[in-house]
Amino acid sequence: MIALLVNGQLRADCTSAIDAQDRGLHYGDGVFETMLLQNGKVRFLTNHYARLKAGCERLAIPAPTDTTIAGDVELLGRIAAEGVVKLIVTRGVGGRGYRSTAALTPSRITSLHAMPLSDGAQGIAVRWCRTRLARNVQLAGIKHLNRLEQVLAQNEWHDGQIAEGLMLDTEDEVISATAANVFLVSEGVLVTPDLRFSGIRGVLRDQVLVKAVSLGIEVQERAVRAKELLNASEVFLTSSVRGLRPVVRLDERTWQIGPIASRLLAALST
Amino acid sequence: MIALLVNGQLRADCTSAIDAQDRGLHYGDGVFETMLLQNGKVRFLTNHYARLKAGCERLAIPAPTDTTIAGDVELLGRIAAEGVVKLIVTRGVGGRGYRSTAALTPSRITSLHAMPLSDGAQGIAVRWCRTRLARNVQLAGIKHLNRLEQVLAQNEWHDGQIAEGLMLDTEDEVISATAANVFLVSEGVLVTPDLRFSGIRGVLRDQVLVKAVSLGIEVQERAVRAKELLNASEVFLTSSVRGLRPVVRLDERTWQIGPIASRLLAALST
Repeated sequence: MIALLVNGQLRADCTSAIDAQDRGLHYGDGVFETMLLQNGKVRFLTNHYARLKAGCERLAIPAPTDTTIAGDVELLGRIAAEGVVKLIVTRGVGGRGYRSTAALTPSRITSLHAMPLSDGAQGIAVRWCRTRLARNVQLAGIKHLNRLEQVLAQNEWHDGQIAEGLMLDTEDEVISATAANVFLVSEGVLVTPDLRFSGIRGVLRDQVLVKAVSLGIEVQERAVRAKELLNASEVFLTSSVRGLRPVVRLDERTWQIGPIASRLLAALST
Repeated sequence: MIALLVNGQLRADCTSAIDAQDRGLHYGDGVFETMLLQNGKVRFLTNHYARLKAGCERLAIPAPTDTTIAGDVELLGRIAAEGVVKLIVTRGVGGRGYRSTAALTPSRITSLHAMPLSDGAQGIAVRWCRTRLARNVQLAGIKHLNRLEQVLAQNEWHDGQIAEGLMLDTEDEVISATAANVFLVSEGVLVTPDLRFSGIRGVLRDQVLVKAVSLGIEVQERAVRAKELLNASEVFLTSSVRGLRPVVRLDERTWQIGPIASRLLAALST
């Protein structure tokens, strides 16, 4: 970590920054965003804020204003021009017990991290995860703090050649990678799993859908099974931090980087 | 909160006690126990420790030793003779990203709280919750920190006359209350939902099963539907902190405190 803001205040010491009764720690009672900082600005900040706000609304947490978040980001953007900004908003500091008894003030923890090594544009190898995503319409789509499934899934492999793991839900539908959304090209159509029951509605996922439509590519958001993904002519992942990454290997199956991924990569870089 | 230990050290200031990078905060990457302190001792400490250890094993977190936990509890038991001890064990302080890259030292946060008001032995009123419990065999049974479903469920009502809410899973099976296990007496048999897909294996739940068998009561752990619960001759809840609480009302349905609950209440008090 490069820098830390707690409720907008720069904290030199991250080891004693958080209240022991914060409901983020006790219950994962909050949401987060992971954003790309480039030239001192967060890319797609408006979209990240919109998702954060939607997540807060779903959980009945009062969302910070967009100017508050912009202030945090600006402060961190003066410390480093490039990196990853992680923003956590929790319901606040509460007593013992699941119910939030009083009107709480949400906690805001904004941190700046070094950029991960880029591993993507030349294509990545992925695997299937054994860990499944549970289905819950009330939590689907938002980026909440209950992320044990992703933690268990990423701990399934330690082979540095494998960049990501694909996850099925408990009904055998393909939902996403552990930290990215997934797209496939099936009979010329760009398909991405719908996220009614699980998964996170990625900011770059929505950008790719918009770009694809503007390029005249047919798109579908619907249920996807593993077999369809294996038969796809192209597969790629999207993440705000790591961008669009074509998948070139999944176990024995290999792909070339295809025309739709290439066009979208070009469109996103403008 | 009355007192706080972080990794065994008494902390006077709970507002700045936790590392901003603790994985408990970021992902709910950990487990917890909520235990009853009576006469300076934790009731069923061995059983709480066993569940904590089992949860750590499931999540591949190195569990603290039983002597470490006993040390924390003893320290808090010298501060107050009665109360609730909450113990959180997280995977530790890690970097950004779901994967725990290095061998981390787990964090241990042990806190002492005032006893909640007893509301139970004369019978309680409960309701149904709209919030569902998702199914995931990898997380079922253990008391992990991903508790948004319970938070949402408890925030569904604010009527102080209603002590608890009953929760169904996404397949319409009755699993538990928001913070207690549920038992029913169906055709003379004591039944409690099996927890293969969701729910927490309560310490008092297991004690009640053992006591019932020793009293010659037939017991079954199996799937339960709402209709069977409404037709039951007795319904009661169990929780380590609040004990065995007979249910006397669920919406329009009312019950008297029944013979099996009474026998178990007597057996547990010895």
